[in-house]
Amino acid sequence: MKFGEEELPITTPALLLDIGKLDANLARMYAQVDRLGVPLRPHMKTAKSIDVARRALNGRPAQITVSTLSEARYFAEHGITDILYAVGVTPDKLAEARALRNVGVDLSIILDSVEMAEAVAAGGAVPTLLEIDSDGHRAGFAPDDPALVEAARALASVGPGAFRGVMTHAGGSYDCRSEEALRAAAARERLALVEAAERIQASSVPCAVRSAGSTPTALFADSAEGLTELRAGVFMFQDLVMAGLGVCAIDDIAVSVQTSVIGHQAAKEWIIVDAGWMAMSRDRGTASQPIDQGYGLVCDAAGQTISDLIMVAANQEHGILAMRPGSMATLPQLPLGTKLRILPNHACATAAQHAAYRAIGADGAELQWQRMTGW
Amino acid sequence: MKFGEEELPITTPALLLDIGKLDANLARMYAQVDRLGVPLRPHMKTAKSIDVARRALNGRPAQITVSTLSEARYFAEHGITDILYAVGVTPDKLAEARALRNVGVDLSIILDSVEMAEAVAAGGAVPTLLEIDSDGHRAGFAPDDPALVEAARALASVGPGAFRGVMTHAGGSYDCRSEEALRAAAARERLALVEAAERIQASSVPCAVRSAGSTPTALFADSAEGLTELRAGVFMFQDLVMAGLGVCAIDDIAVSVQTSVIGHQAAKEWIIVDAGWMAMSRDRGTASQPIDQGYGLVCDAAGQTISDLIMVAANQEHGILAMRPGSMATLPQLPLGTKLRILPNHACATAAQHAAYRAIGADGAELQWQRMTGW
Repeated sequence: MKFGEEELPITTPALLLDIGKLDANLARMYAQVDRLGVPLRPHMKTAKSIDVARRALNGRPAQITVSTLSEARYFAEHGITDILYAVGVTPDKLAEARALRNVGVDLSIILDSVEMAEAVAAGGAVPTLLEIDSDGHRAGFAPDDPALVEAARALASVGPGAFRGVMTHAGGSYDCRSEEALRAAAARERLALVEAAERIQASSVPCAVRSAGSTPTALFADSAEGLTELRAGVFMFQDLVMAGLGVCAIDDIAVSVQTSVIGHQAAKEWIIVDAGWMAMSRDRGTASQPIDQGYGLVCDAAGQTISDLIMVAANQEHGILAMRPGSMATLPQLPLGTKLRILPNHACATAAQHAAYRAIGADGAELQWQRMTGW
Repeated sequence: MKFGEEELPITTPALLLDIGKLDANLARMYAQVDRLGVPLRPHMKTAKSIDVARRALNGRPAQITVSTLSEARYFAEHGITDILYAVGVTPDKLAEARALRNVGVDLSIILDSVEMAEAVAAGGAVPTLLEIDSDGHRAGFAPDDPALVEAARALASVGPGAFRGVMTHAGGSYDCRSEEALRAAAARERLALVEAAERIQASSVPCAVRSAGSTPTALFADSAEGLTELRAGVFMFQDLVMAGLGVCAIDDIAVSVQTSVIGHQAAKEWIIVDAGWMAMSRDRGTASQPIDQGYGLVCDAAGQTISDLIMVAANQEHGILAMRPGSMATLPQLPLGTKLRILPNHACATAAQHAAYRAIGADGAELQWQRMTGW
């Protein structure tokens, strides 16, 4: 449902974004990458918003990472044209990638097989990075896979600029349980990528770009030696999973879902709210962490956490709030209509359930910030 | 991303809807409610689509159930005006409910406290149903709660039509594990609602509407005696959770996510596809069932299931396919770019991740069908 900049209906559930916390999260990441001496290519898959992107790129190089071609189109239409599409390309997406390049977008793509490298090369140069598997998490060439060098050669044979370099994403860092583990994950990610780049260069193929990153490894890296850029996205908003990893404090979380109390089940010590999984997502990312936050941690209308009150269950448009199992605290009295904020397990998943942000400035004023969706 | 009726880009991931299966699911439900002698008020929270609603209401009374006021606005704008908003109303949603009534929408609301009944009554009549808790699942008055009669009286005091009746949703039926349990859940739901209605009528307040339903209980009810309507939504699409309950066959599932193979991790026996949780949702509704389908069951491009191949893990735009743990079958050879369909755990959650349907007719022709979102 569309509404103009003038009229922001006070409806729930709604996605809130605290601009002050967003800015603090951005400042922390930029301090880190400046210390490491490497540029950031922020991943826009979490925010999917030109308004957030402008805030994130303020005075910095306008280069971003995206997770879909629709994000690439959207950000290009809004003037950001240096874009890495960081999900393995398929043959039938190449036409759209080339079309974006033909209208002036410096789009680069990634892949992780000789077969796909040859398919790209057969159609002429699209700047390509080879994906490296630095932690066994998901996709990518092992750094010592001979096919890696073969793929680089296949691309480089098309001409200068066709093979741009290597990239990796240390998704396994989400399983770290200590600061030492986070630092070690960052070092492993970097060393795997540098090893891959050196193998390629040893075969006389220049490997200009070495792009690594995830929010935990970017924030906890001790060194960026051998890297040319870092990528991260969720750091802008942070979330309960990141707080559970020790990557941020709960108070750093910039997004929340505003909700209203719609009922009580006194005998069960339940409070029912109008934010269910449609507003929160079904993400249960803290379920495997030492502190399980259910479907989210409850705050009052001003954003102060309410001790031990979590969303223990979610239906489509109903959330059930209750005290965390084992809590000694008492269920608070929250009358019908009370406004609350729920902090999400996973900012990417929760934000994806909403069509726009209600962005709240330091003065309390609310702006509507865009969010895009789809493929 | 908008695209017209003429151009349907063949992109993945995308939400497919098999119109033939939709029609068969509708025919089955209508045969059941006709046998029971009670009208259906289909719940549009699953489909959220006027195109699906027209198919579902074809020749039947144009009365629906919705889960948000934005759905009520959307369907009213498309000419369906007999609407039950079946999530407990809050004080600050009453203005919008009244506004919809003032433009001719026969919107009815629900609530489950004397406090909210008095808040509604104070502002003048909005036709209201009292929610009954028939299985301890979520919200509602217990049928024998004296507050139920008090709330009915508070509403009835405003004038004729202000108190419309009682409703319940047997959400607990999703935990049934046998046909007998499903039949028993349907009987419990009906008897709890009839008990509540009789208590209200015993206090001389007429209780015209007795509305019950969920897909499992509506399909397995042996009787609708004492009820005036049934509600259900997911039955139109069905899903793996319903199949796991024995409510439908896997072949009845009308929605799937079309995806492309984007990579292989041969050593791990993984196939990587471009549908992750953004396309499937994070719903893991089969995790607690005897057969855990991961993030979805894999079919070939024509919709034939591939034995024991499931999505074992999902990142935002990556799905990892592998053989079901313990399977004796062999991982199929699926080259890069191969198109697949993934059947969802939960149709409501998966459909909610998409902006439109690619609806496929019996002749294989594809149409774009609308889907709305938001609150």
